[in-house]
Amino acid sequence: MKTSFESDYNNGAHPEVICHLLETNGKQSQSYGFDEWSEQARNKIRTAIKCPEADIFFLVGGTQANATVIDGMLQTYEGVLAVQTGHINVHESGAVEASGHKVITLPSHAGKMDASELEAWLEAFHADPTLEHMVIPGMVYITFPTELGTVYTAKEIDEILSVCRRYELKLFIDGARLGYGLASAECDFDLAWLAQHCDVFYIGGTKVGALCGEAVVFPRGNAPRHFMNIVKRHGALLAKSRLAGVQFDALFTDNLYLRIAKHAIDMAMKMRTIFAEAGIPLRDSSTNQQFVELTNTQMEHIMHDVLFETWEPLGADRTLCRFVTSWATTDRDLRDLKEALETL
Amino acid sequence: MKTSFESDYNNGAHPEVICHLLETNGKQSQSYGFDEWSEQARNKIRTAIKCPEADIFFLVGGTQANATVIDGMLQTYEGVLAVQTGHINVHESGAVEASGHKVITLPSHAGKMDASELEAWLEAFHADPTLEHMVIPGMVYITFPTELGTVYTAKEIDEILSVCRRYELKLFIDGARLGYGLASAECDFDLAWLAQHCDVFYIGGTKVGALCGEAVVFPRGNAPRHFMNIVKRHGALLAKSRLAGVQFDALFTDNLYLRIAKHAIDMAMKMRTIFAEAGIPLRDSSTNQQFVELTNTQMEHIMHDVLFETWEPLGADRTLCRFVTSWATTDRDLRDLKEALETL
Amino acid sequence: MKTSFESDYNNGAHPEVICHLLETNGKQSQSYGFDEWSEQARNKIRTAIKCPEADIFFLVGGTQANATVIDGMLQTYEGVLAVQTGHINVHESGAVEASGHKVITLPSHAGKMDASELEAWLEAFHADPTLEHMVIPGMVYITFPTELGTVYTAKEIDEILSVCRRYELKLFIDGARLGYGLASAECDFDLAWLAQHCDVFYIGGTKVGALCGEAVVFPRGNAPRHFMNIVKRHGALLAKSRLAGVQFDALFTDNLYLRIAKHAIDMAMKMRTIFAEAGIPLRDSSTNQQFVELTNTQMEHIMHDVLFETWEPLGADRTLCRFVTSWATTDRDLRDLKEALETL
Amino acid sequence: MKTSFESDYNNGAHPEVICHLLETNGKQSQSYGFDEWSEQARNKIRTAIKCPEADIFFLVGGTQANATVIDGMLQTYEGVLAVQTGHINVHESGAVEASGHKVITLPSHAGKMDASELEAWLEAFHADPTLEHMVIPGMVYITFPTELGTVYTAKEIDEILSVCRRYELKLFIDGARLGYGLASAECDFDLAWLAQHCDVFYIGGTKVGALCGEAVVFPRGNAPRHFMNIVKRHGALLAKSRLAGVQFDALFTDNLYLRIAKHAIDMAMKMRTIFAEAGIPLRDSSTNQQFVELTNTQMEHIMHDVLFETWEPLGADRTLCRFVTSWATTDRDLRDLKEALETL
Repeated sequence: MKTSFESDYNNGAHPEVICHLLETNGKQSQSYGFDEWSEQARNKIRTAIKCPEADIFFLVGGTQANATVIDGMLQTYEGVLAVQTGHINVHESGAVEASGHKVITLPSHAGKMDASELEAWLEAFHADPTLEHMVIPGMVYITFPTELGTVYTAKEIDEILSVCRRYELKLFIDGARLGYGLASAECDFDLAWLAQHCDVFYIGGTKVGALCGEAVVFPRGNAPRHFMNIVKRHGALLAKSRLAGVQFDALFTDNLYLRIAKHAIDMAMKMRTIFAEAGIPLRDSSTNQQFVELTNTQMEHIMHDVLFETWEPLGADRTLCRFVTSWATTDRDLRDLKEALETL
Repeated sequence: MKTSFESDYNNGAHPEVICHLLETNGKQSQSYGFDEWSEQARNKIRTAIKCPEADIFFLVGGTQANATVIDGMLQTYEGVLAVQTGHINVHESGAVEASGHKVITLPSHAGKMDASELEAWLEAFHADPTLEHMVIPGMVYITFPTELGTVYTAKEIDEILSVCRRYELKLFIDGARLGYGLASAECDFDLAWLAQHCDVFYIGGTKVGALCGEAVVFPRGNAPRHFMNIVKRHGALLAKSRLAGVQFDALFTDNLYLRIAKHAIDMAMKMRTIFAEAGIPLRDSSTNQQFVELTNTQMEHIMHDVLFETWEPLGADRTLCRFVTSWATTDRDLRDLKEALETL
Repeated sequence: MKTSFESDYNNGAHPEVICHLLETNGKQSQSYGFDEWSEQARNKIRTAIKCPEADIFFLVGGTQANATVIDGMLQTYEGVLAVQTGHINVHESGAVEASGHKVITLPSHAGKMDASELEAWLEAFHADPTLEHMVIPGMVYITFPTELGTVYTAKEIDEILSVCRRYELKLFIDGARLGYGLASAECDFDLAWLAQHCDVFYIGGTKVGALCGEAVVFPRGNAPRHFMNIVKRHGALLAKSRLAGVQFDALFTDNLYLRIAKHAIDMAMKMRTIFAEAGIPLRDSSTNQQFVELTNTQMEHIMHDVLFETWEPLGADRTLCRFVTSWATTDRDLRDLKEALETL
Repeated sequence: MKTSFESDYNNGAHPEVICHLLETNGKQSQSYGFDEWSEQARNKIRTAIKCPEADIFFLVGGTQANATVIDGMLQTYEGVLAVQTGHINVHESGAVEASGHKVITLPSHAGKMDASELEAWLEAFHADPTLEHMVIPGMVYITFPTELGTVYTAKEIDEILSVCRRYELKLFIDGARLGYGLASAECDFDLAWLAQHCDVFYIGGTKVGALCGEAVVFPRGNAPRHFMNIVKRHGALLAKSRLAGVQFDALFTDNLYLRIAKHAIDMAMKMRTIFAEAGIPLRDSSTNQQFVELTNTQMEHIMHDVLFETWEPLGADRTLCRFVTSWATTDRDLRDLKEALETL
């Protein structure tokens, strides 16, 4: 079987996660979020983010989390601002629009939103005399790290938050790959800081060592009223909530969540060296997703040996390709990649 | 810890299911439904239902399956007919309406829909000159077994199907507890027959031994066009689809799904005897959910020893209570119940 | 051409309304609700209801007004309580569900909701431990007069309002035929009283002398934030808002609205006498809609001479039929009816 | 009162329209689209577009028509392609998203969509391996004339239609100002040709001489099944449908629709001359909306004498402004404008 760098959801759960599922399996528990592991995991997360008042809900997947949070926090007539490349705008089959909310797009700068562009847009919006005929912006959605593997600095997030406060918008941070962002060498803040600098975010489990599960966090106990009903209405309430609870209990024991992320980042940085040594142009990314520019000949050649994703054509002859690491990536996998590149 | 008969989702997964998750965990696979176990499980199900052409999708939970299937098969302006006690009408926080579809209700007969009442309703509807101002019925939704533990006979389903065919309605069978219905002594058909007598149904995993997962089946390859996009749009597409695939692979190996159901039914029938011997009035139910009428004094007394759900008040002094068995129910659990009743 | 009692929307506008449209036609004005006649009409209505702070919006039709108001005042996950026969539950093609809101039904008593049944339902709802799996009720919707021509007394509305206040529900009164209710001999309150006893209501124009138009009133300036955007989002904002403004300006000049209603009621009461004298059983109704029980032979016979609506079959041989009066009904029309009945 | 060029909906109805409303007012008729004038108007339109099989529905306004048609013709999971400046994307408060449909945007070329850009986008979409995670395009929406007053040539529309056919997309032409496009000197086709080159379009009444009303046309009898229910569900069904029917009956009598448009275009062309002579830079537009670039000093100066709309800032010192003509614009109005410009 070929070595795969296709994604961070091609492997099973991290051993400590799957073992915890096994060892708790025989025990009876409450359901729908009231099981003991969910409660335990919520407390561990509250400690990790230093928000004892936080409301925390475990949902199954990222699209579901985005749709449920956005629908839960917006008024019916409000839209959500995101960059053009934002996951909700591109790869969720219209799940946000399915609840009636427009995704209003701003330019993407290597996946990131620019606070001053956001502010200029809002200023123009509020000066527009036809405002009553438009979608009212109610939220800013950003991803950390972005779909392109880049990370915001604390200053950049702070500036976006300031604009949000000024215009009374909620700030929502999609953390489907949150661990990898926090473990990045470029990241100048920690989880507790992040929790202080948004209205809601989620800690992605699916792509960081779990089988499924995203922990949606309202840091200041600011979950919308009846949020459980909203979750249920979105089909996002697990009957056997232990499935998510047990996994997050494991992920927040002995710092596993960040250990997983750190390992994947280490592997990704070694991967960058391998590509660089092979003379392959690399996009900037300090996280576990690496984007390289391959000629189509190179691409087809490497495909014989290792698996990866093509991202987008760069003209007729070149293609941007994505290589991803995870908890399961080994030095041996990297050796396979190195060997594949050496035969180019 | 008290013995619990609260529900069939208070325990972990059946040992064969959790073991399969463990033993496959180390293997890499494709995602979003293209992993090998999902493919294998689909084939095993196709064999079990004798529908080689069936389209099968694994979703996470019941409300999600109901909302996605109903939204996927109806036109925007169509509604779904269900009995008053139907799960979609009562306990899904409006997930069906969230997609814009009205739940049109008919009387419930111990949880079941009556084919002749359905027909009379449809006849009156089509004779109504104000039809253009009404919600067009597009689907009939029934549960098997019902929320009250009862089962339809083959004849009853066949009659409902005939009405559906006559009026061009889809027939959707919610099988959140499907196994328990099929294993009931009153059930006069099998899984393959069921697949021939509806347009879509699902095989519930969550309540029949899995940690999560419902297998939505379009028996004649009749999934709506772009159903994957519809699933994604509902936030119901698992990235690590192996989670559902592996579990259904186990459930459809060596007949595990029916073995689990059979065990729970055996326990439920023993439970009936215990209640009957204690002189407690029982509602008819041949499945794993048993409904008994307790005086409030009895109810509080029993609660000291075993856990169960109160279902609905019966006047001021009596309460309908629900006791549920599952793969995990043991003879010892029943002994605890028997002892609790003996002290009344 | 046959004399028609089919509905109160079969005629054009009342002469004073159509004349006002003509006389203002040449004048230029602002649009989207900012024209001078809309402003003038709003002020006249504020005076009539004695609510100087009222927010008033002119929408085009009843279904649109219901859908827009309900969507505007409810949270996404909330439903609206109505009686089984309520217009939103029967004859709006699912316009309320189209915005994602469930219509939760209570029994209809000749079209009316019973305050104690409402209270009992709410009490049971709040005692239900599965509340997080249900649709949260957010509003009570009643019609005045009802679809069956009946009227609530002040005491009945007051009791419903008390229950709403106790359970924090909004009270919405659909006044598509409001004038006829107020002009009824059984009505023991006036428009100003009504405005004090609900959260929002509308003054129906279409069925009371206008060509189109419903005045949605939030009596205490309590329109939802950004309600104009909500109206626009529902496609309910007239570009040439003068169309509605001019008509309501006429309707609230020299008491025209009530004069129209009074005339229709007078005609309806004379009609009752005619039916009674002919020995035809009549349902109770003090407004402009009269429901009579005809044998099918009588029904077909009368149809040769005058037009009316069949409402619903009463067994195999009899039919409930509806006869409606309006501003345009004349004594001569009643004579035609009388003559038709005399030949039975 | 100042002369106004603010919009084509600031005046009442064209005299022939308002007179027809008056002269038909006394007559009784059916409702909900079955009145005699609606039927007559439908027939006149069928003749004008040379489509005897056309399905025609009269709705009240443009946003409503757009939302209803798009929702009626798309599958739930489909989106609609429009240029960035398209009315549905900018000025309808999210009415399209309210039904769950994403507006997917392409670049705007003076308000127009480019067929080759459309094709390139569709080609890339269908080559995208993540297609199952995206919104499926189901329709192309264009406006004729555009929001910027420009018109497509027959060749341009034909090319867009070809792409639509190749990719199985519906083509919808928003004709809120259709008359002005057809009367433009640059327009090289007529109404009958247009009807042959799309799947659905509407003939705007509100902005072309009526008080309200848009005639939605499915040229080949291709209205979606149960379209009346869809219209009702969108709150877009007039009870007194005569209101729209009578007006369209007038608009399609003696060629009034095009006479109105022709007059407005003549006035607009004279207006262009006046601006040109005053040295004011004009954008290309052969229809009744004229866009001129004014310095902010000029803008404020002219505002003292005539009314118009500011469209968008052009840097810090200049503003794009819109001047609109209609059936009601007179030579005297133009003289007022000319005088205002002369005093600059």
